Amino acid sequence: MTDHIRIAIIGVGNMGSAHAKCIASGQVEGLVLTGVCDIQESRLNWCRESFPDVPRFADWRELITSGCADAVLIATPHPLHAEIAAAAMRAGLHVLSEKPADISVIRAREAVKAAEETGRTYAIMLNQRTNPLFRKARELVQTGALGELKRSVWIITNWYRTQAYYDSSAWRATWAGEGGGVLLNQAPHNLDLWQWICGMPVSLRAQCDVARYHRIAVEDDATLFARYANGATGLFITSTGEYPGTNRLEISGTRGKLVLENGRMKLWWLVQDEDEVRFAAKESFAHIPVGEEEILPEGEETAHRGILQNFANHLLRDEPLLSPGADGLKELAISNAAYLSAWSDGAEIPIPFDDARFDRMLREKGEAEGKAVGQDAHDVKGEYSERWQVRW
Amino acid sequence: MTDHIRIAIIGVGNMGSAHAKCIASGQVEGLVLTGVCDIQESRLNWCRESFPDVPRFADWRELITSGCADAVLIATPHPLHAEIAAAAMRAGLHVLSEKPADISVIRAREAVKAAEETGRTYAIMLNQRTNPLFRKARELVQTGALGELKRSVWIITNWYRTQAYYDSSAWRATWAGEGGGVLLNQAPHNLDLWQWICGMPVSLRAQCDVARYHRIAVEDDATLFARYANGATGLFITSTGEYPGTNRLEISGTRGKLVLENGRMKLWWLVQDEDEVRFAAKESFAHIPVGEEEILPEGEETAHRGILQNFANHLLRDEPLLSPGADGLKELAISNAAYLSAWSDGAEIPIPFDDARFDRMLREKGEAEGKAVGQDAHDVKGEYSERWQVRW
Repeated sequence: MTDHIRIAIIGVGNMGSAHAKCIASGQVEGLVLTGVCDIQESRLNWCRESFPDVPRFADWRELITSGCADAVLIATPHPLHAEIAAAAMRAGLHVLSEKPADISVIRAREAVKAAEETGRTYAIMLNQRTNPLFRKARELVQTGALGELKRSVWIITNWYRTQAYYDSSAWRATWAGEGGGVLLNQAPHNLDLWQWICGMPVSLRAQCDVARYHRIAVEDDATLFARYANGATGLFITSTGEYPGTNRLEISGTRGKLVLENGRMKLWWLVQDEDEVRFAAKESFAHIPVGEEEILPEGEETAHRGILQNFANHLLRDEPLLSPGADGLKELAISNAAYLSAWSDGAEIPIPFDDARFDRMLREKGEAEGKAVGQDAHDVKGEYSERWQVRW
Repeated sequence: MTDHIRIAIIGVGNMGSAHAKCIASGQVEGLVLTGVCDIQESRLNWCRESFPDVPRFADWRELITSGCADAVLIATPHPLHAEIAAAAMRAGLHVLSEKPADISVIRAREAVKAAEETGRTYAIMLNQRTNPLFRKARELVQTGALGELKRSVWIITNWYRTQAYYDSSAWRATWAGEGGGVLLNQAPHNLDLWQWICGMPVSLRAQCDVARYHRIAVEDDATLFARYANGATGLFITSTGEYPGTNRLEISGTRGKLVLENGRMKLWWLVQDEDEVRFAAKESFAHIPVGEEEILPEGEETAHRGILQNFANHLLRDEPLLSPGADGLKELAISNAAYLSAWSDGAEIPIPFDDARFDRMLREKGEAEGKAVGQDAHDVKGEYSERWQVRW
């Protein structure tokens, strides 16, 4: 077996260029940058200067059939993610795609189907899964240490963006160009962690405020109300218009409660299941003994580099994938359902829903805007790690 | 002018008996207990033993025409509050009513109307308004120190109750007997503070879960989504089924954010209004200078005694009322609107709404249960102050 994976990057804008530098500088063991692709000449010029020996492509279809790589990393605008992923896998390449998997579940499913049919590896850049606190929270919930889920509340409003951010490209903050607003661009990490930790809701209601804070075509503020299979409820509150924002996740269950905030987790655990006390107690206001514990993160958040390394390790040494492509469908189903609800006056949308109908409605939104996809992109200033790692 | 107010208490159950002890022991300057009334003989026996010289009544109509008092304190089951209040004022008495003002806005309005027509004083026991942190929060929001409101989120889930609490009386947790569940019995204090600090919403959506945690006829878990006139949104999350619960209020505005939790308030204040930066900044991820400050409570929470004292001071020395009766309609409008929304599959309910329709629907709920009002009451164990003061 080979000791390294040749990887090409499709789309070397904000994220793609950062990934290119990370890989080319040898930060990911087992990955070698062997191709770059972009439709913008200025970016290919930057690649020629930065990585003179790496082949350059202006057309991703040429790249995937060129034989230059074993795998591709897709960092194009959202609506191209699944199409490129599926085509690359059918051309024999493994795929690591930036989030979201695409802009609608039905499109993203094409990539998952291609992975199943070709046996190629398909992963998604859900880099916040490398955060040790979220991993610990998932363990506590999924092993039942917190008992049966009662409620989750995530206030994740620290995705602040200025108007200049949205003005940086014509495709930004449009239905056709990005497939949505804060739920599609900033919050996918959190939507993914939310379902990764608490499980998928069975239905969703949402209020999505289009252009509450900015001059854009999509939502910059959203409130989601989720129902889980056991009757528990969840809230997810996000915005790009608040400053300073909040990042606080609270989860309560029959055996206690946990709160993640300010980079640490506080855990309250009950000696006895609350639901036993509820019916057995003679008192009206029972005091149940509660233990309190502060849990500090163990290990570091390896973020994007961690996902890249995991992708390489999976291909080279069968390490389990931390963020499989199929998981990308889950957070996307949540945001798609939120839009369906918002477009239906807050109606309760069952999950799974009619994803063909959603895709149709989304396309109509995009056509009504009359904006081009992937054109006219100017690079946004801002740090790779700072922007997309967990911030408290 | 007299140097004291003769006050009678109608309903000497849990709250009424605590108020009686408070007043009879001289803890409220200017109030003298001169009458008690209850339909239960056992309670009147307790009064005879505890306050042998205070006249006792089994019928509140007799009491209010007896001439024994200048004012009444009403601590009966909710559905009698406004009827007794209106009748007492029309009989020439001032009124301090336990919360809520009644179980529907249209009923409560009768009491406000009686106050307007008779010139009598009508106040509500909104004792958490005496909490210095909430008073400070109100000041910061209402004076504009926090800028224009963007969002409020109140997680107030520390109203834990056992099944034994609900089983203590047949009228508890019924539509006819209490007019609702956690929103009508436990959360009115918080609903009132919410509107007192942030202002009234112009519309509301709600999910009210009937009997999620207990064997009852009403909701023990509710999530409210509010819209304010300026487009800002608010969330209010409450439950009697979580342990340990949370009491955390976050309010964000264009000039910063405040969070009340664990008995203290943290304030983040911006040097420059965020909405100016949003459109002026050249950067996509502007860093706005933020000051942080921890605000500790100044003064004590005088709670029920504070409201009693304020009521006396208002009558004796024209001190402004801290919790005027008309304010009782506001929090009640919020919970009534929440029920209307829940009974209409989460529809958005404008405020004000059709309160005659709500009252009709509520009566139908009550008739469908076939339970009596105010009957079969057994006293609940639990401390006056502990139960109804602010808990963190």
